[in-house]
Amino acid sequence: MIKIKGVKFAGIYCGIKKNKKKDLALAIFDNYAISAGVFTKNRVKAPSVIITKKRIDNPIKALIVVSGNACVCVKGDYKDAKNITNSLANFLNIEEKSIVHSATGVIGVKLPVEKVKNGIPELVKRLKDEYEDFAEAITTTDAFKKIEGLTVSINGQKIKILGIAKGAGMIAPDLATMLVYIFTDARIEKSALDKALKSAVECSFNSISVDGDTSTNDMVLLFSTGMAKNKEITLKEGYSDFLKGLKEVCVSLAKKIVRDGEGATKLIEITVKNAKTLKDAKKIAKTVANSQLVKTAFFGEDPNWGRIMAAIGRSGVSINREKIDIDIQGNPVVRNGVEAKGFDEAKMKQELTVEEIKVEINLHSGKASTKFYTSDLTLDYVKLNSSYRT
Amino acid sequence: MIKIKGVKFAGIYCGIKKNKKKDLALAIFDNYAISAGVFTKNRVKAPSVIITKKRIDNPIKALIVVSGNACVCVKGDYKDAKNITNSLANFLNIEEKSIVHSATGVIGVKLPVEKVKNGIPELVKRLKDEYEDFAEAITTTDAFKKIEGLTVSINGQKIKILGIAKGAGMIAPDLATMLVYIFTDARIEKSALDKALKSAVECSFNSISVDGDTSTNDMVLLFSTGMAKNKEITLKEGYSDFLKGLKEVCVSLAKKIVRDGEGATKLIEITVKNAKTLKDAKKIAKTVANSQLVKTAFFGEDPNWGRIMAAIGRSGVSINREKIDIDIQGNPVVRNGVEAKGFDEAKMKQELTVEEIKVEINLHSGKASTKFYTSDLTLDYVKLNSSYRT
Repeated sequence: MIKIKGVKFAGIYCGIKKNKKKDLALAIFDNYAISAGVFTKNRVKAPSVIITKKRIDNPIKALIVVSGNACVCVKGDYKDAKNITNSLANFLNIEEKSIVHSATGVIGVKLPVEKVKNGIPELVKRLKDEYEDFAEAITTTDAFKKIEGLTVSINGQKIKILGIAKGAGMIAPDLATMLVYIFTDARIEKSALDKALKSAVECSFNSISVDGDTSTNDMVLLFSTGMAKNKEITLKEGYSDFLKGLKEVCVSLAKKIVRDGEGATKLIEITVKNAKTLKDAKKIAKTVANSQLVKTAFFGEDPNWGRIMAAIGRSGVSINREKIDIDIQGNPVVRNGVEAKGFDEAKMKQELTVEEIKVEINLHSGKASTKFYTSDLTLDYVKLNSSYRT
Repeated sequence: MIKIKGVKFAGIYCGIKKNKKKDLALAIFDNYAISAGVFTKNRVKAPSVIITKKRIDNPIKALIVVSGNACVCVKGDYKDAKNITNSLANFLNIEEKSIVHSATGVIGVKLPVEKVKNGIPELVKRLKDEYEDFAEAITTTDAFKKIEGLTVSINGQKIKILGIAKGAGMIAPDLATMLVYIFTDARIEKSALDKALKSAVECSFNSISVDGDTSTNDMVLLFSTGMAKNKEITLKEGYSDFLKGLKEVCVSLAKKIVRDGEGATKLIEITVKNAKTLKDAKKIAKTVANSQLVKTAFFGEDPNWGRIMAAIGRSGVSINREKIDIDIQGNPVVRNGVEAKGFDEAKMKQELTVEEIKVEINLHSGKASTKFYTSDLTLDYVKLNSSYRT
C-alpha cells in the first residue's frame, strides 16, 4: 500500500446518510500542499465547485468532503458550503482560503450543516496515515472503493502517486458525481503540476462515459506535499516521467469508475485510429461510446457492427465510409466499410462473453488516435435509475 | 379517411422479411408530382438516400420502398438499389430519374434483389386509391401504422394533406430508421414546397428523439399532385395556411413515432421558453430530451427535477441558474433554480402516472421558445435492443 509522506486522512459518519455509512472525509497536509484542479463544465455548479475553484491555486492545508448531500440547487447552499470550510478553519486555527471542499449526493435537499460542524472535532481526532476510511467516506452508491497508487522513478529518485476516487453512482436522486483526489510527495513546480493534471485528465476522466450526463459537483484535485527527495520537477526536467505515472494512475481510476457505472457488466475500450485530427478521433469515439444502441448491443453480447458504423456516421466528422475497418476483440468485423470476409456472428458472440471488450476503429485517413472507455447499458441501469422496484 | 387525388398505393410481401409480412411498397402518381425531400445527416448514407436526393427535384412518377433490408454497408449495395429503380422504370416504361426510393431494415446484409424485381408486376397490379397496404408495407418493428390526414382551407379553397410514416423500430440489428411520406393535392410552387417541408420538419421530425441515434436511411418526402382546384400557392400567397396544415400533420406523425419508440411507455413534451436564442432553446431541449437519467426517471414516474437542472447545465448554453423555473404537468417544481415552495414529491409522482407528460422550462432570459418530444427509457428498450431473452 502506497503511503504519501506529509498527508493524513480521516473518514467518519456525521449524520447525513440515512444508512449510517461514513459521510464526512478529511485530508490534512503537514505543510501546505501545492495544488491543481479540474472542474465540471456543467453550468449549474455546486458551491463546493465554486469555492474550490477559487482557492485551488493557494497553498492548501486541508480538503473536506461531504457525501450523501451535494449541497446544490437549494436556498442558501453557498452559505452552507462556506459555513463548513469556515468551521474547519476555526477549529484548526488556519486560514479558510487554504481549505478546499467537495460534496456529492442528493441535490436540492438542505444540507444538515450543524451535523457536519459537530462532526469536525471527531474527524480531526481520527486523522492517520492510512486512507481506507477516507476512501470509504467519499463514496455514495459506489460498489467498491477506488484506489490506485504507484512509485515512479525520476532520474533515479523515487516519488509516489496515490489516487482515490468516487463515481459514478447514480441511484435516484443522485447524480453521476465524480470526485478524484490525487496525492503525490513529488517536489514539483506549480506550473508543471497544473499542466500535468490537465493532460492526464484529458486521456482518463475526460475519456470515459457512463451515460453522457455530467454532474454539478465533479472535480479532480492533485496535491503535492513536496516531501520526496527528488530534484524539483519542472516543465523542462522530469516532467514526462511524472506525467506518465500520473496518467497511469488516472487511467486506472477512470476504468474503475466506468466498471462501477450503475448496472454495468462490461467495460468497453474504444480506440479510434488514423483519424485526420485528434478532435475528429475524439468526436467519433465519444459518439460510439454514448450510443444507446451500441451500449445495449454489448450488454446483449451482440456483435452489431452496423450500430457502430451508424454512430461513426452521425458523429459529425467527415469520413470516408469505404476506408473504415472495425475490429472487435482483435477480430476483423468490418473491412472497407462492409462486413469483413469470414465474419462469424456466432463466434463473435462467444468472444463478447467477457468483462472487458476492445473495439478498434481504423479510419485510414490520418495519424490521430484516441481511446475512450464506456460501459454497457443494462437492465439494472434502468432499474436503478428509475427507482424501479423488482 | 383522407384521399389524395392523383396518387395510387400498393404494398405486398415479396420475400425479404422472414415473418412474411409485407415488405415492398409503391406509390404512383397519375401525372408527375412536384416533390421535396429532407434527408439523414448521417455521413454513412444508404444508396436509397443518395439516389433519392439526386432525383427529388425532378418531376416524380413513382416511389418504391423496400422494408426488412436497409441495403447499406454491404458490397454492391449501390448497384442493388439502382437495379430496383431501373427494373421499375423498365416495367412501367418511364424514365428512371422520375423514380425515388427508400429502404429500411437490417444493415450489412445483401438485399435479395431478384425477389424485389420479381415482386414488381404483382405490386403494380395491386395499385389502388387506398393506402393501408402501403402504410403496412413500409413498417418494420413498428407496433402500429402511422397515418395522419387533414383538409386545409386556403382562401376558401380546400386542399388535402396525407402523411404516412415509419419509425422508430430498433430491434437488433435494425436501426431507428424514420421514413415519412407526405402527399398533397395542393397546387403549389416548387420553391414554396421546398421551404414548407424544411420548416415543418424542423419543428417535428427534427424535434424528436428516441435514443439520439440517427439512421443511415432516414428521409422525409413531400409530393404534390396538383389536382386540387386551389389558386397556386406561392411564398407570397397561401403559404402560411399550407405550412400550418403541413406542420400539424408532421407534428402528429412525429409524436406517433416517439410513442412507438421501442419499449416507450410515455411521450414527454419538453418546452423551453424565454431563451436568448432559438439555438439555445433547442440545445437545452435536446440535452434534456436525450438525458438517460431524465428518461429513466420518467419511466420510474420520479419527479426528479435535479436531473433536469443538471441536463440544462451541461447543455453548453450559458444560463443563469437563479432565473430557471421548471413546471411538470403544470405544477411548479423549480422556482429561481431551487425547489419550488410546496413541492410535494408524493403528489407529483401521482401526476406522472399518465402516458403524456409536459415539462416546461422557463429560462427568463429572452424570447425564444421551442418544443421537443422524447420517450422514457425503459426496461423493454434495453431488452429489445440487447436481444435480451426474458
